[in-house]
Amino acid sequence: MTDWALAVDIGGTKLAAARVRRDGTVQVRAQRPTPENGDAETVWDALAGLLADVVADDRPDLVGVGCGGPMRWPAGEVSPLNLHAWRDFPLRARLGQCYPGARVRVHNDAVAMTAGEHWRGAGRGTRNFLGMVVSTGVGGGVVCDGRLANGSSGNAGHIGHVVVDADGPACMCGGHGCLEAVARGPAVVAWAVAQGWTGNADGPALVDAARAGDPICLAALTRAGRAIGVAVASVAAVLDLDAAAVGGGLANAGDLLLGPATAAFERHAGLDFVQRCRLVPAELGADAGLVGAAALVFDEASYWPAGAD
Amino acid sequence: MTDWALAVDIGGTKLAAARVRRDGTVQVRAQRPTPENGDAETVWDALAGLLADVVADDRPDLVGVGCGGPMRWPAGEVSPLNLHAWRDFPLRARLGQCYPGARVRVHNDAVAMTAGEHWRGAGRGTRNFLGMVVSTGVGGGVVCDGRLANGSSGNAGHIGHVVVDADGPACMCGGHGCLEAVARGPAVVAWAVAQGWTGNADGPALVDAARAGDPICLAALTRAGRAIGVAVASVAAVLDLDAAAVGGGLANAGDLLLGPATAAFERHAGLDFVQRCRLVPAELGADAGLVGAAALVFDEASYWPAGAD
Repeated sequence: MTDWALAVDIGGTKLAAARVRRDGTVQVRAQRPTPENGDAETVWDALAGLLADVVADDRPDLVGVGCGGPMRWPAGEVSPLNLHAWRDFPLRARLGQCYPGARVRVHNDAVAMTAGEHWRGAGRGTRNFLGMVVSTGVGGGVVCDGRLANGSSGNAGHIGHVVVDADGPACMCGGHGCLEAVARGPAVVAWAVAQGWTGNADGPALVDAARAGDPICLAALTRAGRAIGVAVASVAAVLDLDAAAVGGGLANAGDLLLGPATAAFERHAGLDFVQRCRLVPAELGADAGLVGAAALVFDEASYWPAGAD
Repeated sequence: MTDWALAVDIGGTKLAAARVRRDGTVQVRAQRPTPENGDAETVWDALAGLLADVVADDRPDLVGVGCGGPMRWPAGEVSPLNLHAWRDFPLRARLGQCYPGARVRVHNDAVAMTAGEHWRGAGRGTRNFLGMVVSTGVGGGVVCDGRLANGSSGNAGHIGHVVVDADGPACMCGGHGCLEAVARGPAVVAWAVAQGWTGNADGPALVDAARAGDPICLAALTRAGRAIGVAVASVAAVLDLDAAAVGGGLANAGDLLLGPATAAFERHAGLDFVQRCRLVPAELGADAGLVGAAALVFDEASYWPAGAD
């Protein structure tokens, strides 16, 4: 068996792949833009070319993939919201054809990130852990009693749809008052604009403006942070967490987001065991998805359920 | 090995015990009031007498216990909020001394109820399940990917401390807007009284009055039901549940509570996999705790973690 896994991270804007070693180090990392136009095979050809660059003359025994949801799991038939060319695309089966005999695993990208942070990042050594990605959406995953939770359809970990404000805004999911409806980047920007912010209406600009002291942008991050803290307090009560880690683009705001999140968490975390949960930044940055994809295949006992194939 | 487990349910008002068979049937059930005064040994003596009645001339190999929390888990040193005579009482060790060689397991009473409903009740056949007890408090437990979730300190399942209203009332736990602060029986009664209800201020009277059409009592149950539905939607998103079952005294209100709970759940459950979760009444009634206590010892693979002793 090779001492590295072929790790793949498939998103709406870029495809990334690397060789990831058992210690979590990332090597031969490569990426290319996700084709914006074209059909399912156009995207597949781009991915296959990228993987060929990473694999070169070797043959991987282990192939782990994080991909945007939804998907049929564990079959790995993917229909990413942010990649319209793929609908029920048999990603796992296609990769299996490319690498006969290899162990191939496909999971939700935010779940993979959580596996990565638990395996080699901010969740190392914890038994109960919540990973969060706050970006265009709010995704996540949970480790419960030392194992990645999958749920009955592979959808466990959707922290973005915890209700943080029962009377709050409609969410794109069809629900109301979900964390994602309040804290996803575009919602934070939209709130700031509605309050009169006149900057370049995107997340990085909002974070920059907040750093420069813009009161509306600071309030927008505070509002999002509070929602995150409420959701973490709820999940910590249900799962008796050791830690929750926040990553994703909006987490680049650092303490401007995590400070209010921590304050809200502390306000809502009453019981001793809930207070014990640490709310921390994710550690693996842009590599979390790749490291997590490797975790799915390197440590099946923790990150892939027995008998799920 | 005996074909029955000695099952024990320890509460603030009564001690119950029975022989429970592997199929979940409850035999030789006995109970007595929890001594209101007296020290730790007074309560222990009452319990020991009760168990002697159930055991008679036999010798149990399996002893399962549900007891009010908090406790040190898995050590089973209990400090029930509703049983002041026991503080750090070594319940598991004492039972082990009574029944040398027996397998003795002690868990939170609401967690035991959840194990019971999953094993032989409303959660039969599910892989991901939430059990709730809505009574003087709001407790619960979760089954995650087919196993009872324990959490890092044995406290997983505290559904009562999911935040359902971030700006809501202070909770006895020290947090704010918890489900328990809104939906526990005494809070429901207090809300009705504050709205002008003049009946006998307890839960059963409130349920009776609601059945008779009292608009304040109906509104009080609707408010509690909504909070339950919000909390279930949140947990269903995080754990990808098959079902959530509601038991406990206030659940005797039936559809007057579960109807609004279901309506709120449907309003907040947007994603397909969340909507798939069934919100149902618990099935085992007053025996759920005893049946669950037996589940802890009959089916350790599902209800007791490997290596927890």
